[in-house]
Amino acid sequence: MNKRKICVVVTARPSYSRIMTALQAIKEHPDLELQLVVAASALLDRYGSAINYIQNDGFEIAAKVFNVLEGENLTAAAKTTGIGILELSTVFDNLSPDIVVTVADRFETMATAISASYMNIPLAHVQGGEVTGNIDEKVRHSITKLADYHFVASESAQQRVIRLGEDPEYVFNTGCPSIDLAARILERPDFNFDPYLKYGGVGSKPDLSKGYWVVMQHPVTTEIQKSRAQIEETLHAVYNLNEPVLWFWPNVDAGADGTSTGIRAFREMHDLENFHFFKNMEPNDFLRLLINSKGLIGNSSVGIRECAYLGVPVVNIGSRQNARDRGHNVLDVNYNRDQIFDAIKSHQQNGKANSSHVYGGGDAGTKIAELLASLPLRFHKTIMY
Amino acid sequence: MNKRKICVVVTARPSYSRIMTALQAIKEHPDLELQLVVAASALLDRYGSAINYIQNDGFEIAAKVFNVLEGENLTAAAKTTGIGILELSTVFDNLSPDIVVTVADRFETMATAISASYMNIPLAHVQGGEVTGNIDEKVRHSITKLADYHFVASESAQQRVIRLGEDPEYVFNTGCPSIDLAARILERPDFNFDPYLKYGGVGSKPDLSKGYWVVMQHPVTTEIQKSRAQIEETLHAVYNLNEPVLWFWPNVDAGADGTSTGIRAFREMHDLENFHFFKNMEPNDFLRLLINSKGLIGNSSVGIRECAYLGVPVVNIGSRQNARDRGHNVLDVNYNRDQIFDAIKSHQQNGKANSSHVYGGGDAGTKIAELLASLPLRFHKTIMY
Amino acid sequence: MNKRKICVVVTARPSYSRIMTALQAIKEHPDLELQLVVAASALLDRYGSAINYIQNDGFEIAAKVFNVLEGENLTAAAKTTGIGILELSTVFDNLSPDIVVTVADRFETMATAISASYMNIPLAHVQGGEVTGNIDEKVRHSITKLADYHFVASESAQQRVIRLGEDPEYVFNTGCPSIDLAARILERPDFNFDPYLKYGGVGSKPDLSKGYWVVMQHPVTTEIQKSRAQIEETLHAVYNLNEPVLWFWPNVDAGADGTSTGIRAFREMHDLENFHFFKNMEPNDFLRLLINSKGLIGNSSVGIRECAYLGVPVVNIGSRQNARDRGHNVLDVNYNRDQIFDAIKSHQQNGKANSSHVYGGGDAGTKIAELLASLPLRFHKTIMY
Amino acid sequence: MNKRKICVVVTARPSYSRIMTALQAIKEHPDLELQLVVAASALLDRYGSAINYIQNDGFEIAAKVFNVLEGENLTAAAKTTGIGILELSTVFDNLSPDIVVTVADRFETMATAISASYMNIPLAHVQGGEVTGNIDEKVRHSITKLADYHFVASESAQQRVIRLGEDPEYVFNTGCPSIDLAARILERPDFNFDPYLKYGGVGSKPDLSKGYWVVMQHPVTTEIQKSRAQIEETLHAVYNLNEPVLWFWPNVDAGADGTSTGIRAFREMHDLENFHFFKNMEPNDFLRLLINSKGLIGNSSVGIRECAYLGVPVVNIGSRQNARDRGHNVLDVNYNRDQIFDAIKSHQQNGKANSSHVYGGGDAGTKIAELLASLPLRFHKTIMY
Repeated sequence: MNKRKICVVVTARPSYSRIMTALQAIKEHPDLELQLVVAASALLDRYGSAINYIQNDGFEIAAKVFNVLEGENLTAAAKTTGIGILELSTVFDNLSPDIVVTVADRFETMATAISASYMNIPLAHVQGGEVTGNIDEKVRHSITKLADYHFVASESAQQRVIRLGEDPEYVFNTGCPSIDLAARILERPDFNFDPYLKYGGVGSKPDLSKGYWVVMQHPVTTEIQKSRAQIEETLHAVYNLNEPVLWFWPNVDAGADGTSTGIRAFREMHDLENFHFFKNMEPNDFLRLLINSKGLIGNSSVGIRECAYLGVPVVNIGSRQNARDRGHNVLDVNYNRDQIFDAIKSHQQNGKANSSHVYGGGDAGTKIAELLASLPLRFHKTIMY
Repeated sequence: MNKRKICVVVTARPSYSRIMTALQAIKEHPDLELQLVVAASALLDRYGSAINYIQNDGFEIAAKVFNVLEGENLTAAAKTTGIGILELSTVFDNLSPDIVVTVADRFETMATAISASYMNIPLAHVQGGEVTGNIDEKVRHSITKLADYHFVASESAQQRVIRLGEDPEYVFNTGCPSIDLAARILERPDFNFDPYLKYGGVGSKPDLSKGYWVVMQHPVTTEIQKSRAQIEETLHAVYNLNEPVLWFWPNVDAGADGTSTGIRAFREMHDLENFHFFKNMEPNDFLRLLINSKGLIGNSSVGIRECAYLGVPVVNIGSRQNARDRGHNVLDVNYNRDQIFDAIKSHQQNGKANSSHVYGGGDAGTKIAELLASLPLRFHKTIMY
Repeated sequence: MNKRKICVVVTARPSYSRIMTALQAIKEHPDLELQLVVAASALLDRYGSAINYIQNDGFEIAAKVFNVLEGENLTAAAKTTGIGILELSTVFDNLSPDIVVTVADRFETMATAISASYMNIPLAHVQGGEVTGNIDEKVRHSITKLADYHFVASESAQQRVIRLGEDPEYVFNTGCPSIDLAARILERPDFNFDPYLKYGGVGSKPDLSKGYWVVMQHPVTTEIQKSRAQIEETLHAVYNLNEPVLWFWPNVDAGADGTSTGIRAFREMHDLENFHFFKNMEPNDFLRLLINSKGLIGNSSVGIRECAYLGVPVVNIGSRQNARDRGHNVLDVNYNRDQIFDAIKSHQQNGKANSSHVYGGGDAGTKIAELLASLPLRFHKTIMY
Repeated sequence: MNKRKICVVVTARPSYSRIMTALQAIKEHPDLELQLVVAASALLDRYGSAINYIQNDGFEIAAKVFNVLEGENLTAAAKTTGIGILELSTVFDNLSPDIVVTVADRFETMATAISASYMNIPLAHVQGGEVTGNIDEKVRHSITKLADYHFVASESAQQRVIRLGEDPEYVFNTGCPSIDLAARILERPDFNFDPYLKYGGVGSKPDLSKGYWVVMQHPVTTEIQKSRAQIEETLHAVYNLNEPVLWFWPNVDAGADGTSTGIRAFREMHDLENFHFFKNMEPNDFLRLLINSKGLIGNSSVGIRECAYLGVPVVNIGSRQNARDRGHNVLDVNYNRDQIFDAIKSHQQNGKANSSHVYGGGDAGTKIAELLASLPLRFHKTIMY
């Protein structure tokens, strides 16, 4: 029997972490052939190219798609998606996959979904059904309505996709593959690298041995004019904390300029002797950094997802993670330096949280591969009501 | 006060008929400024360019967007959409509309929806919430999840959009603007033109004075390999009927080649003395043709929609209009020459059907314009569950 | 030793005829591997798809590139070229050719030239150095300045390319591959098919046994507003001739609408009992048609090129073939019905012309393949003065 | 009388300096209307956005075109050009210019040339006819063959364009507008700003009062694999010099990564107490910096062009400026640290060079505007031999 060809399109560094164990499971599955397409910012150095990690992890790349139109504005985001469709439809034509897999909800994943569904190729969507406050919110549910199979990460996401009129027979709560990765790391959580040495970055090099906080805050697409003001609240709160801080630069997104400018201006105005700034970090190293930290501050989905399983305390700021399911590790606050500061202090008192399986138990990758191998092929569906 | 700028994108001849009275109402509304963009096949002669009707109707065109990539295959449909995004995002940049309106569910309307929503421009969707059997089905609901306002055409559509998680405050059953047009025509239904003279076309010129049937059957995107076989069933059924038939060539769509080839081959094999073939017809003339006909055969949405209001008997073939609401005028049949023939005969016995307001009462255009003028602007939404 | 990979991009039916024997020679050469890319109108049914001929001739197609943007206007020509660059650069990335070959001077061949030269792939240009009156004129010489090797078709073309500052070591007068084809046909010139039966077409079916004329007239890009008036002069002249005429519809080009509309209108106004209209014809059949005709009327380059070798009388109308080298078979006239008529009559008296080798002796394909196998690879050049 | 609409497309910071005085002269000309289009890297912050200078200089921008596809590889350069064509043809459609002006020879200027010439808009080319060692060489002469008017910068360039078969009536040696700018600055050459304060940058802040050198070295497109090795030679030579150095980061181009990486690595390995690194500088300030410097090292065209007029000593490295005309101020060397070092020393002994008018006398902008106002419109040409 011919192996089923499964084409997975990865468009950004964080998406790679969220699908990596599924890629491994597909690659190793006797009935599947993996066609890995790397696209958009996942190819670009200045966003911490995922391509190196991907190659180090031993994956072969079937096609590279450069489709990021420079401009860091909303028009460029639309055009990047348009170019993505032009390019990906050629790629799918060449690779003739049996199923295309699109990951999560970044704006450019829409290109994968449109090319596949318009070409009558069965489309699987990983991590649909969640709720956030962003253009991602529209993109995610819109892709759900184009997708033929749904591999969601939590029970509430499963319920939501079914309420969206999808056939329950094709909606599966596999858990999130990012949790698989976290589970593996949690088995060997010790720090086995020096972050300053391995990742460079800029700023002071505070002593991490007595504990430190991690900050990762991205701009919110629907609030881009406010991105500078928002980051300043966090900067002040963390500055007042007066403890070692490892800060990660934001993703490329419309609005990243405001966030970055805010950080740069703050650096020039203040003597940040406790701050070190990183551009990015290998997922595994980042998880180890989190496990050994006092907690994560910002609006990264890692705080909601991996940190739930890992029990890492999280101060979640603003609307970006909105209505996503949470474990017991999260305190939600507004863009307000006092609220942020107080939440950090509260976590400091309570310490580590209990592990929660709300986003899966560490076997999502295997489940997804198994489903891709066994589900009947379909690209024709009708709303269930 | 500045007028609100309402940008409506029309991408095909049938879409124009479905939005025309709304365009008029927007144009005449004291608080609105109409920005009409004509794109895709609506610009192209060989699909019966809508542009002439549009200009004859007195509308000014703010921008023309050529984005149809030739190829009549599924890859070309995807790429046409990608090019549409590239072009429309430039157009929206130039026109700075307050609201963008996208019509119905043809594949290329997705370009309008993506460009507007990615650029944080409030998006109104006309005719969401319906159910059909096609790629249109995916496109329609996917656009619903990108849209901020919903102007639907029937009560069941309204319920469906709300079940899709949209805020009921922004979902309005306005009825369908195409019914407005039908209502106007029904006031003066007399034939005021000679179709052979005015529209040319090919084939015999059967005498229409003792009644005639109209046929309009498009290929179904998800069944393109079958499009030739499907059209042949209809051809045989109508041929056996032995009555005057006015036949319309199919829309441009992946699969149109199969349908067209089937028709051409049949013409060569048979002496079609009762058949005349038209490329297209002005909407008003087409409605008069229907009102004075014995009935409509095929899978056009006009049969489901306008004919409900007009009481014109319809033989609806196959899956294309699937689960759309119906008046009492429709008999549904499979791609089967006998079933088609029997349904025609049955209609012939019963004659004209009663008018049904299932798709609105003739004031949809006015309602839509009123809503566009008064609704609060928003481009940020969250699923309701 | 690895074979050199030679990627030839064919973008239109007439270009295919002009490169076919070179394709064969490349395919059969022991040191070369042919990568044939078929693009633009060569893929499209309605321009008499070259793809069928290509496949019948036994060529494998390495990639198909759909890049024709519909619109039949000048903007669409520019955009078609832009899309061609996007697509072809992906194709070249995938195929990694050692040399790319671009043929002649149609506007979309510029996409091949830009993609290859910008990607540092050595570029060979076939049929540079000629002179015509059209956008082709700009395109042709512009491509010469991007190309690394020049395979020209006549001595004057060779001199011209060298005067353009190209290194004489890389400029070769191979003759034109279309002459190879003509030479083969001339060995067996007999009509072995019934054109009406094999190619359909529309119009009367005049008796060809007592001689007939062939007409092929394309619009001129720089004179598109005049294309209808221009074709009318030819229509009148040929109509007055009152002899059997086989007329070929124009190429797709900006302005084709004017030409086509002119022909259609003339058909409706006149009873054309001597006219038959063809969409297109296999190159071999077309050559046989010419050999057995009384002559060719219009502005096709076939009249200048193949007909020189074949000795077929040609009435060449207008500026399109401008300053191309001519054999003794050509009479040049303006867009003027009287001049056209008189030239036809003059040919009628003189009959067949002598064969001229101005465009080569029938071995161009072999020469080109030999050069592609032996020339040093280079993509870096400097003007010679 | 209506003013002639002159659409100038600026695609990069250095191109802006090379056309700025012409823009002013067009803007001020009573018979001309300036339509300034800013595109490509000229819009992007990370390449030292020209847009700020443009707006500070009081120009209104008619359209912005984002067309840079990220990737810093050769495929991306091709695709950036393809996207440029798609976008610019829309812009030209909207602006309906009477003449389009394209500047110099960067790869993306080809998009301007193709869009204009394919749309039958008369095209003027500024700075054709020069000779360099790069993809620019192909691009420049290729654009000459598309252009209808030629405004060249030197006598040898004028001769070369005429030898390329252009009509001498349309080839004008206007001199280079960048010289106009240099002439203005030379009237008031005093340093009126603190470069460290005004432009930031990184590195030490050497004392400039006793003299300093300026370095600006870009990667060469046809030698991208060598860009890192090439920059290292310069770094070593200048490091050994042990005098204050102001170093400018390279342009965005395929290969910029190698150059940048080379610089960064050298910085980490050496203690560069005499080096300061700038991203970019306003043209006027940069000229003042040069006038007051000991000389310029690298391969920037400013060294060949403005520095000829200014008499600034230049060490020109490698093939990038190849066969361009030179004043007496230039010493040419290979990518070799010893040659570079020796040339610097030789300049140090000789001091300032004499001013040369090889690239014009400071009135190019006015001459160009005058020609644009008076030349007959034409978009149809034929090679002169």
